[in-house]
Amino acid sequence: MDLNFLKTLIIPAETKIAMLIMDGLGGLPLEPGGKTELETARTPNLDALANLSALGLTVPVGPGITPGSGPGHLAIFGYDPIQYEIGRGVLEALGVDFDLGSNDVAARGNFCSVDDHGLITDRRAGRLPTEMSKELATLLRTIRVDGVEFFVETVKEHRFAFVMRAPGLGDALTETDPQRTGVPALPVCALQPDSEKSACLANQFIERASGLLAGKQSANMILLRGFSRYPCMPTYPELFGLRAAAIAVNGMYRGVAKLVGMQALDIQGDTLADEFTALEKNWNDFDFFFLHVKKTDTAGEEGNFERKVSVIEEVDALLPRLMALKPDVVIVSGDHSSPAVLRSHSWHPVPTLLYAKFVRSDGIAEFGERACARGSLGILPAKDVMPIALANAQRITKLGA
Amino acid sequence: MDLNFLKTLIIPAETKIAMLIMDGLGGLPLEPGGKTELETARTPNLDALANLSALGLTVPVGPGITPGSGPGHLAIFGYDPIQYEIGRGVLEALGVDFDLGSNDVAARGNFCSVDDHGLITDRRAGRLPTEMSKELATLLRTIRVDGVEFFVETVKEHRFAFVMRAPGLGDALTETDPQRTGVPALPVCALQPDSEKSACLANQFIERASGLLAGKQSANMILLRGFSRYPCMPTYPELFGLRAAAIAVNGMYRGVAKLVGMQALDIQGDTLADEFTALEKNWNDFDFFFLHVKKTDTAGEEGNFERKVSVIEEVDALLPRLMALKPDVVIVSGDHSSPAVLRSHSWHPVPTLLYAKFVRSDGIAEFGERACARGSLGILPAKDVMPIALANAQRITKLGA
Repeated sequence: MDLNFLKTLIIPAETKIAMLIMDGLGGLPLEPGGKTELETARTPNLDALANLSALGLTVPVGPGITPGSGPGHLAIFGYDPIQYEIGRGVLEALGVDFDLGSNDVAARGNFCSVDDHGLITDRRAGRLPTEMSKELATLLRTIRVDGVEFFVETVKEHRFAFVMRAPGLGDALTETDPQRTGVPALPVCALQPDSEKSACLANQFIERASGLLAGKQSANMILLRGFSRYPCMPTYPELFGLRAAAIAVNGMYRGVAKLVGMQALDIQGDTLADEFTALEKNWNDFDFFFLHVKKTDTAGEEGNFERKVSVIEEVDALLPRLMALKPDVVIVSGDHSSPAVLRSHSWHPVPTLLYAKFVRSDGIAEFGERACARGSLGILPAKDVMPIALANAQRITKLGA
Repeated sequence: MDLNFLKTLIIPAETKIAMLIMDGLGGLPLEPGGKTELETARTPNLDALANLSALGLTVPVGPGITPGSGPGHLAIFGYDPIQYEIGRGVLEALGVDFDLGSNDVAARGNFCSVDDHGLITDRRAGRLPTEMSKELATLLRTIRVDGVEFFVETVKEHRFAFVMRAPGLGDALTETDPQRTGVPALPVCALQPDSEKSACLANQFIERASGLLAGKQSANMILLRGFSRYPCMPTYPELFGLRAAAIAVNGMYRGVAKLVGMQALDIQGDTLADEFTALEKNWNDFDFFFLHVKKTDTAGEEGNFERKVSVIEEVDALLPRLMALKPDVVIVSGDHSSPAVLRSHSWHPVPTLLYAKFVRSDGIAEFGERACARGSLGILPAKDVMPIALANAQRITKLGA
């Protein structure tokens, strides 16, 4: 369903919607026929809520597609993640809380090593220590070119976010990383006429960076990829009339939330409980809350089944603090699956729960993959969850007479 | 699936399809965990039919969208209700059995009250009695303007259907109802060049009406909104090769059925049993029958749970008369949900049953929301029901060799 069509039916209401996202929530059993992480976890509060909710399994992007964090979140936020693409460069900049604007083109940068002939010997410069990477970033920040501002923000080890700021910059650019060693870095080429200025500026930056880094022991060159502009997205306030808040510790999730017009709230501390405290503090000032739990995904990617189980149990124990606020609509879901046995994101549909006063509840007192597969939401595109939540929040008017 | 594609596969057959629509069928329990109206109703005949049928839940327009009666019926008739829009004016005209044509632009009219300065004091003219409204309509019918025919048909109280008939009239027009009092009625403005003639004619009519009504006690002005033309729809005979009949008491449903090429049958009397009598009388002359039950929706909108239950039981008791005709395919569904607890149409998916000789039956001997959620039709767009029904009626040929 087109968001511009949905927008025409949005009406104001006093209701509040809470979306609790456990990153990489969906899982798999360790042995065929066993229980998944979520099914293994002791979750009395989620199970009780499930009993009053409609359950289903969400498909973030499409059948068989494993989403990255950007597409996964856009989908559960209600956007078609194929239509609304977030480039790698933009994600990298958002991840370091860089305040991207509409005049910016961002790229993901690597320090790398080249030999005397300029041939790449190590695409990651021996994963140089983050401290050293920060020093080199300071050096690169001295590069000045008329009519453009450059930004270099260290991410971790050899990785940095690179941003060019000037009017009229296109992002249809080739990458400089040849993805192998023994060859030189590639020049940036414009794929469309509107990106020629960007290509020219990026190549000037690379040349100056190469000069500044010459003689450094390992990190004596840079590679840039994923050139991209801030995507033009209709926002939650515009589309849905929602004052929306994001509660997330990690910069990237705060950034994606900001993309769709959510305000990223300050959190005192970095524990899960601190996130719930931020929720309580700000409850009266917003209509919609996105609360992001990172550690489920981290445990899944580390292959730590037990750890993922215990993070889910930790969330379950905190759930009563959310319910005590008496939200009108609660969504509990994930942005994608991250089964510990796969040690990575996966394509599996994501357990999803929708609670509201007028939801047609399934009476299934369990929140888990197989329970959700029997739920009345069925297997649905993740982007369809928000319209159903908005309907339950009485924020969509009737179509036609 | 595109209807033009489906059309290429349609083949003739001698089979008969009956579509029994209980308006606003879907419901909600009075208390969380309780039974819905349909689940509460004693429906031995529907339950026995369900046991031989495939069950599912239909989504009329899209996730979270509450359909009006127009979009809801178009969807269960097989049309995408977002693609095929029926304007408010058209619905109003259809509702009074007005024979709309392709040269007509229809609007929903209100008598209203204005003060000496032309400022609106009551948008509904005190909901004047229908008899008085009919007299004023007669007065407005005296308005003559060269090159156009005007029609004014009383609906009820202050409401009337207004139609302009002339070649080349567009319907991209603004409404005159400012939706509040203390301000004057707005002029009709053309939003596109092809609608300038319509705007001019509508404004002439309003000016003349204002003159004729001047001095009347309360209804001394009119408001017009929802200007719309008869939508251009491919019809049942063209698309599906079906001689289709509609059995409905209320004008609006007869009108929507006529929009898609159904013949609205005469009914002797206005009870549900009379509708089944009309079905029996005409059984040999048509391939497809739409039988509309209005009172389920009325009860839902009145918040009368018990009444809705008893209407469903009344339909159940009449079902054997339909089955005695030995239809090849039977669809039992609704155009949307109207839960008594919400006292309005709602977004909830609609219980749907498809019976046919070669349907893959679910063996679920119960017709209700949760039973349908377990059915093998799954949760499906309402517009997908007709293709499945046509297939079961052996009216769709194989695609490709």
